[in-house]
Amino acid sequence: MDVENLMRIPIDRESPLPIYRQIVAFLRSAIESGGLAEGVKLPSTRQLAADLGINRITAANAYAELEADGLIYNLQGSGAYVAQPFLPPAGRAAAILPEEDWPLWQRALPPPPNSPLHSLEEHIRACTCGRSGLIPLHLGIPDPGLFPVDEFRKVLQAVIRRDGMDAFEYGDLAGYLPLRKTIAHVLGQEGIPTRAEEVLVTSGSQQAINLVIRALLQPGDTVLVESPTYSGALDLFRAAGLKIIGVPVDERGMQLEAVPALIQAHNPKLIYTIPNFQNPTGVCLSGRRRRDMLALAAQASIPILEDDFVGDLRYEGRSLPALKALDPGGQVIYISTFSKMLAPGLRVGYILANGPVFETLLAHKRVADLATSSLIQRTLESYITVGRYQAHLRRACQVYRRRRNAMLTALQTFLPEDTQFSTPHGGLFFWLQLPKGCSSLELLQPACREGVAFLPGTFCYPNEGGEKYLRLTFAAASPEQIESGIQRLSICIRRECVVSK
Amino acid sequence: MDVENLMRIPIDRESPLPIYRQIVAFLRSAIESGGLAEGVKLPSTRQLAADLGINRITAANAYAELEADGLIYNLQGSGAYVAQPFLPPAGRAAAILPEEDWPLWQRALPPPPNSPLHSLEEHIRACTCGRSGLIPLHLGIPDPGLFPVDEFRKVLQAVIRRDGMDAFEYGDLAGYLPLRKTIAHVLGQEGIPTRAEEVLVTSGSQQAINLVIRALLQPGDTVLVESPTYSGALDLFRAAGLKIIGVPVDERGMQLEAVPALIQAHNPKLIYTIPNFQNPTGVCLSGRRRRDMLALAAQASIPILEDDFVGDLRYEGRSLPALKALDPGGQVIYISTFSKMLAPGLRVGYILANGPVFETLLAHKRVADLATSSLIQRTLESYITVGRYQAHLRRACQVYRRRRNAMLTALQTFLPEDTQFSTPHGGLFFWLQLPKGCSSLELLQPACREGVAFLPGTFCYPNEGGEKYLRLTFAAASPEQIESGIQRLSICIRRECVVSK
Repeated sequence: MDVENLMRIPIDRESPLPIYRQIVAFLRSAIESGGLAEGVKLPSTRQLAADLGINRITAANAYAELEADGLIYNLQGSGAYVAQPFLPPAGRAAAILPEEDWPLWQRALPPPPNSPLHSLEEHIRACTCGRSGLIPLHLGIPDPGLFPVDEFRKVLQAVIRRDGMDAFEYGDLAGYLPLRKTIAHVLGQEGIPTRAEEVLVTSGSQQAINLVIRALLQPGDTVLVESPTYSGALDLFRAAGLKIIGVPVDERGMQLEAVPALIQAHNPKLIYTIPNFQNPTGVCLSGRRRRDMLALAAQASIPILEDDFVGDLRYEGRSLPALKALDPGGQVIYISTFSKMLAPGLRVGYILANGPVFETLLAHKRVADLATSSLIQRTLESYITVGRYQAHLRRACQVYRRRRNAMLTALQTFLPEDTQFSTPHGGLFFWLQLPKGCSSLELLQPACREGVAFLPGTFCYPNEGGEKYLRLTFAAASPEQIESGIQRLSICIRRECVVSK
Repeated sequence: MDVENLMRIPIDRESPLPIYRQIVAFLRSAIESGGLAEGVKLPSTRQLAADLGINRITAANAYAELEADGLIYNLQGSGAYVAQPFLPPAGRAAAILPEEDWPLWQRALPPPPNSPLHSLEEHIRACTCGRSGLIPLHLGIPDPGLFPVDEFRKVLQAVIRRDGMDAFEYGDLAGYLPLRKTIAHVLGQEGIPTRAEEVLVTSGSQQAINLVIRALLQPGDTVLVESPTYSGALDLFRAAGLKIIGVPVDERGMQLEAVPALIQAHNPKLIYTIPNFQNPTGVCLSGRRRRDMLALAAQASIPILEDDFVGDLRYEGRSLPALKALDPGGQVIYISTFSKMLAPGLRVGYILANGPVFETLLAHKRVADLATSSLIQRTLESYITVGRYQAHLRRACQVYRRRRNAMLTALQTFLPEDTQFSTPHGGLFFWLQLPKGCSSLELLQPACREGVAFLPGTFCYPNEGGEKYLRLTFAAASPEQIESGIQRLSICIRRECVVSK
């Protein structure tokens, strides 16, 4: 039996409406709503009759009526095709139901997870619509232009030739073992000794954070975070129904002095920290505080989630040990990603965890999406020899250091004097404090109109606050763009903040 | 500054232990635990000194001691490398902590989500260890051998050449728009009129189900399912803390007669159904019941989640309309996947939803993992022209129909007479009822020893039950393997069931 163009049209044999009319009504509605697009080939009448268990003449009658109405056309010897419907675009849009016609449950949906970044992007699009050339200082990702597309394409080719169908199957749930070995080697070289058996590959670090939440926390539990911190993590904590307590950050990272009292008062079940070139402030947790944080967490038996998203993008100064490297055993869950180094669309991150929690994380990974793309994992493994990774890292550091310097110079040149910032020694971001009385949220729209976007500080705060701060990404734009962007931003600050004063 | 071989070794300047000894202790432990693998290149002493802010002589002293201990070696003009550690493998395994040394929180983890399938795979591995040639009638996936690897590889190449870096960025959160258009066209051709704007691309249908749960349900809510049903969905429902009520299935699908009373008693917030070639029973929901289910759900305002995982793998008989095609508007959320048709490792599925729930699902997708691999989506889009998809489908149906027939013949030939089954008209599975007193769980181990695996029915039941059933997949093995597998299985049934009677 031939199943080409299988079409499952609902037929009600008990209806008083003749079957051919039911077919006409169904196809007419599908074509007019755009569900069946212009040029789509319809099944032959023979096929339609067999599929629906009807007489072929019935099918032919239906097609004849549709053709007479100009909804389909016949090509000699080829078959019937959908014609362009006569409805104007407005008519098609009307095919969408008015709100009161949706089922009751659709009108009382639980609130979706808070996604301020999503609305930021929509807001920026709205401010700049119709014009191109926005200087993107708001993104949390580095320059995709550094990604060696052509080299990666060749490796991809070689992997498919080598592995054939294996590259497309589920594979090991914890991740492709050779890739986990490579990750363990790269981490070992960075002073984080580990074994492949402790590495769990995830679909980006966003999924990694999500798995840790699922494995360790219940709705209503409390998590301690730096304030400000990574907005995507805040999204996840909020979506999981967690209570978020922010600990202020200074130039040496999370202010640990406040933490014992917070532990006492809130009994947190997790400490989330970005110790290196923190998002959004760019600061590093000091060596002393790293040891103190571990001691505090061990004493209260609170797991630490260490997000080391750009720990190896260091442009100067001395490196500090990862919390995971200081971990006496099983206290720290370490996550990182290849998205920042290679390409965000690859969606490959990883968790480093030892102890019983590894199996719990693995079980949640399996339930969440079964596995991460085997093909991409195999290609990454083949691509990332340790030497190649470090060559890429070296190149990225050179490029980003230049951009960091370009932004530093521009900020020193153009910004009004009462705007404050410090210079990050690595990572992706500058964190600006605006002149008194100036709100970054109010500044966003004029800045976008001027052609430059940034992240308002409010997006990075667990609860209230952040109006006077904004985050600038120097890693995603050229030095020329950066100079122009900071110049435009400075004009806006002078104009808006003087007005609002 | 050079950041090659960046190594973040924890140094405590307040410790009485000299710094060079701290470095030695750290590297020794890393090498002996296998965290720094044999052959890994260490940073130069100059580099290490710069990284750690120490004197170069201190670094050289540390390396000298490690070399004297045989833990590293120097290659003239190239640098220092990790040597093979002298520890025996048993010594390395001992580097893992005994249970009582883990932090308290690791010893009191919340129970991981129930993953019986994971333990099934481990069980099967344990039964067959050391031997190859297991006939895999237990898998839920069709034959990966049908996937046109080489053709796909060429399309992948062309896509990277065409799109360059764009193929590696995040892209549209709801999915690559041209792919969503293609999905809408394929569905339109199958009698499910829709628009690209109603299609949300996911990382496989496992994530699709997970997103629907997150969007609609709270822990403690009730979901109605067919009993038996897809074990992966049961895993997700359990992990989300849902109460699962099973509705018995007969040869016309879910027994809807029981549903009004269940709705009354349990106030379910979702109905999960697989109307076509159900997993695991292979039955189709009758046309009459499809209409009745929609009417019941509309009346009680309960969303229907329609999992159409193999709706188009039909080998004979008349097609039935999808519930989504009968949906008066926004009552049904439809999910499907490319994994069954193309390759499971691709991890691309989709949700079809209209009404306000679409935005809620999208927000949860964004929070869960930001996006699905852009490269794979673009390649799929380029690969799946409607014509090519249908050619692939036609070929798959031919192959699977032959395998279905082979299994049918083998079952009729070899099975003891008191074993019951009916013949599926599509999909992947036969569902067997064993002779009285015979347990499929007890049968699994002897069958694996004989070289054939199946899925015990218990895995598919929401609560108790299923011992006397088992699921056989005919789509993942050749006709010869199927014949041999059923022969072996029949021998086991005769032997074990006679013994246990």
